Amino acid sequence: MERIESASNTKIKCTAALHLRKERDKREEFIAEGVRLCEEAAASDWPLKFCLVTAQAFENRRVRAVVDALEARGCPVSLTTPGAYKKASATETPQGILLVIKKATVALASLKIEETPLVAVLDGIQDPGNAGTILRTADAAGCTGIVALEGTVDLFAEKTVRSAMGSLFHLPIVAQTTAAKWLAYAKAQGISCYVSALDKEAAPYYSVNYRRPAAVVFGNEGSGVSTALLDAAPHLYIPMHGGTESLNVAASAAIILYEAFRQRHIPDSFQQR
Amino acid sequence: MERIESASNTKIKCTAALHLRKERDKREEFIAEGVRLCEEAAASDWPLKFCLVTAQAFENRRVRAVVDALEARGCPVSLTTPGAYKKASATETPQGILLVIKKATVALASLKIEETPLVAVLDGIQDPGNAGTILRTADAAGCTGIVALEGTVDLFAEKTVRSAMGSLFHLPIVAQTTAAKWLAYAKAQGISCYVSALDKEAAPYYSVNYRRPAAVVFGNEGSGVSTALLDAAPHLYIPMHGGTESLNVAASAAIILYEAFRQRHIPDSFQQR
Repeated sequence: MERIESASNTKIKCTAALHLRKERDKREEFIAEGVRLCEEAAASDWPLKFCLVTAQAFENRRVRAVVDALEARGCPVSLTTPGAYKKASATETPQGILLVIKKATVALASLKIEETPLVAVLDGIQDPGNAGTILRTADAAGCTGIVALEGTVDLFAEKTVRSAMGSLFHLPIVAQTTAAKWLAYAKAQGISCYVSALDKEAAPYYSVNYRRPAAVVFGNEGSGVSTALLDAAPHLYIPMHGGTESLNVAASAAIILYEAFRQRHIPDSFQQR
Repeated sequence: MERIESASNTKIKCTAALHLRKERDKREEFIAEGVRLCEEAAASDWPLKFCLVTAQAFENRRVRAVVDALEARGCPVSLTTPGAYKKASATETPQGILLVIKKATVALASLKIEETPLVAVLDGIQDPGNAGTILRTADAAGCTGIVALEGTVDLFAEKTVRSAMGSLFHLPIVAQTTAAKWLAYAKAQGISCYVSALDKEAAPYYSVNYRRPAAVVFGNEGSGVSTALLDAAPHLYIPMHGGTESLNVAASAAIILYEAFRQRHIPDSFQQR
């Protein structure tokens, strides 16, 4: 196992540079930190560039097991000093193991459509925690793909990756396409695309048939879904009691995507009427 | 209108001290910042101590309207210099208007029970954003009260107040009671209390009848609901597809509380079967 003792080592500098979106976009690489995320990445088919691990973390049995799995996949692992590791890591309390991974996003044209699609579309979501939580919920609800439109926070920012808790590796992800291209694709594939909106004239979210090929667009935390999509697709809304004006976008996504889950996967006889 | 030009003014120091939980607990006061939250507070029946506003913010018509409403309620308003305001404010980008408010939490015994109760119970939730989002979702889903058990993040921390988006003022809130007291109260009132758990032997969340008096406990982000409650109350789980191991707790709360909403408020004929 290679040893890295200097913070000016090339791998350390390459990793630290990935804290900037510009560099992540240019190199199509990102960081996944922590034993849990490294386990998920090792079990995925995403291309792994290299792993950095501190001697202290390596004393942990679970860390050693993931390092074995990474080496079995041919991923180079370097043992680093705490100082060098800290420079590479983005977190305030570094976990002692991180991976640099090549993004395995897919083109819109190759979004899986063999099953009945259920796609979550992110349109301008800005908070990395919200974006990561929506990925995690979409994965749990049985979505078949994620589409992030231009203007959405980077799905490969460390905080998004952390909030997604490995779900990033479970689902086909289309990053950085446009609303126009998405709408053309959905139309061509016969996917009914709905937008989540605060529009009380809209259809309540539970009145829609999600057993058909469907997609739901979730918009920006402040301004909602963009005009191009609002004009082009039917609106859905979530009824609210009392004085609430809106819901957090990740909560809205959970409610709507689990309504789709209910319709698709739960037999009537198991439900309360 | 009083003018404050010094950062060592008593009101400025009193406000700045409320950034610490200890002080919020001792004085039973907290800060709500920003025009939107101040509007919600002005429209509520929570006791308002005083308002600080900068001259710059006061140029905004919406800010002037909320200041009028506050003065009509007898709440003292002080015009402060940007420097003094910045010392009082907790945010990095101060919004120029904040209120110091007396907490109007209720005792467990006076949690409203005239309607069929639906209570969201927070058991050890640590992330202020999650706690605030659950409050906001509970409000929208028609919950009749919130109970925060010991060990839960302070519902009156600035980040929680901000994430709750005013919902703090809409619902009766019991802060800092114990699991034992809550269970005794629920039993005495005939409220069926469920805990949300990652326990596949548990009842799926949609099989429960939420039309009856009900409560759902949501647990810590890492360790879940505490043992005392797991031992005492029936478990609910949310089925998950694919490789997901868990959901974000605020997403879980959205899914379960909106299932209760669906059962309570949406006629069968309006739903997709």
